[in-house]
Amino acid sequence: MNFKLEQEKRVSEIEEILRRYMPKEEGYYKTVTEAMNYSMMAGGKRIRPMLMLETFRLFGGRDNDILHPFMAAIEMIHTYSLVHDDLPAMDNDEFRRGRKTTHIAFGEAMAILAGDGLLTLAFETVARAYEHVNKSLDDSLTVYERIMKSYKILAMKAGINGMIGGQVIDIESEGKSINKDMLDTMYKLKTGGLIEASMMIGAILAGATAKEVDAIENIAGDIGLAFQIRDDILDVISSDKILGKPIHSDEKNFKSTYVTIMDIEQAKYEVEKVTDRARKAYESLPYENEYLEALIIELINRKK
Amino acid sequence: MNFKLEQEKRVSEIEEILRRYMPKEEGYYKTVTEAMNYSMMAGGKRIRPMLMLETFRLFGGRDNDILHPFMAAIEMIHTYSLVHDDLPAMDNDEFRRGRKTTHIAFGEAMAILAGDGLLTLAFETVARAYEHVNKSLDDSLTVYERIMKSYKILAMKAGINGMIGGQVIDIESEGKSINKDMLDTMYKLKTGGLIEASMMIGAILAGATAKEVDAIENIAGDIGLAFQIRDDILDVISSDKILGKPIHSDEKNFKSTYVTIMDIEQAKYEVEKVTDRARKAYESLPYENEYLEALIIELINRKK
Repeated sequence: MNFKLEQEKRVSEIEEILRRYMPKEEGYYKTVTEAMNYSMMAGGKRIRPMLMLETFRLFGGRDNDILHPFMAAIEMIHTYSLVHDDLPAMDNDEFRRGRKTTHIAFGEAMAILAGDGLLTLAFETVARAYEHVNKSLDDSLTVYERIMKSYKILAMKAGINGMIGGQVIDIESEGKSINKDMLDTMYKLKTGGLIEASMMIGAILAGATAKEVDAIENIAGDIGLAFQIRDDILDVISSDKILGKPIHSDEKNFKSTYVTIMDIEQAKYEVEKVTDRARKAYESLPYENEYLEALIIELINRKK
Repeated sequence: MNFKLEQEKRVSEIEEILRRYMPKEEGYYKTVTEAMNYSMMAGGKRIRPMLMLETFRLFGGRDNDILHPFMAAIEMIHTYSLVHDDLPAMDNDEFRRGRKTTHIAFGEAMAILAGDGLLTLAFETVARAYEHVNKSLDDSLTVYERIMKSYKILAMKAGINGMIGGQVIDIESEGKSINKDMLDTMYKLKTGGLIEASMMIGAILAGATAKEVDAIENIAGDIGLAFQIRDDILDVISSDKILGKPIHSDEKNFKSTYVTIMDIEQAKYEVEKVTDRARKAYESLPYENEYLEALIIELINRKK
């Protein structure tokens, strides 16, 4: 398998799907749709919908009409969180992925509304998934339940007990030194939340058992944690140009990270430890997906 | 019927329901839950959940376990929109209902996150409604479909084709003079959006037909429009003390309103015209709910 080639293929497949669910730029409130599309189509690795798709495949999932709205929704939620995170009152970032952030390009009010619009559109998009259920089939009740469960997980993992909870810890711990336990909680929520949602929803929609979904939740949480520790390391050892955003931004914002509470070698060891735990749990599942494995390894060892 | 008494009874019933769905103030991200509860429990007339409840009753609805999460959700969405609307980059309001706005009390970052948290919690709350469906009953598929339809309407009417669309027009028309058609579109979306969602969901969950739900959508849209024109009138003729927020705020913010594009008597006539249209449509429905009728009249003729 040529990983890079397979990855590029999937990224363009995913972007094709995303475009299908994004709003047309027209009418009285055209500006907000422009701001939403600007932020959604700013590139990026499309990690969350990709993990959802590949976990769905891991469990032998087939019905893409129901999966696709959820893939679009998870990317909308991820994007809204970036738009709001970049606001002056939050991280105050002017560039992301080498482009102006949404509030710089469209103004602060429009960035707030575009974020709200993406979050709401995410839930509207998945609410439409039920329209694809074939009611003449005997298992339509089961399919409805999978959709509703996925819907619930999407909202839970994006909310105060998930991503938003992590953002709150992040904001409140600025300028303070926090311990490893709190840092882990923050990462598990802030980054892990949506990764857990992605992989769990992929599994649920493919018909995985409750026990399998639990295993996937743990694996995804560890991927999120390892990914975030790697982010801390890259913020120190990479360069602006490779990363597409300013390095040393954590230091600038007086944030506690893995490389402020321990040295870089120890942080790298932590990545390995968490990765090993996830790998073991993954290997105990009786399924295989070569690309998913390669993707996870890439996420954890990435250079940018 | 003693309307005031009946109204007070319902407000406390609704606040009891809301409290059941609000987050506990605990843990690492306690602050955001405090900010969410602060804004949700700031009083207010609870118009949207009340309209939902009474429309549900109008159509003979019975299963409150499914209705209640939707009642809580619509109030959460309304509240989040106020929290974000009050932000410095938006309307920049420091007081609402006689209390400090959320960003004044908790800071701007926490107000953004509390708003995001309320919006997400709204969808999480309704996603849990399906857990109350009795699967042993023959009509469980029908009930699932009502929930999903309601879910979709909630997201649609709160999103860019509903409330957010209206807010975008509002922001963009500041300092410009806009015509009546655009003003009507703005009001139908910004205020009408959630009122339509409230009444439509009440009807759907009670088992109303598609035609009845359409009729309710039109009635609700007119109520929203009349309510908003009334708001424009009150902004000019009321006082800070009665209104609980600064009067003449539209003038201060250079906004086009019904009383800037026409005189007050004409604006009052517009309220009557829209109200009459709604009344006729309402009277053509073969159901009755005395309290709902009184509530609608009160909303349109209110003094604050």
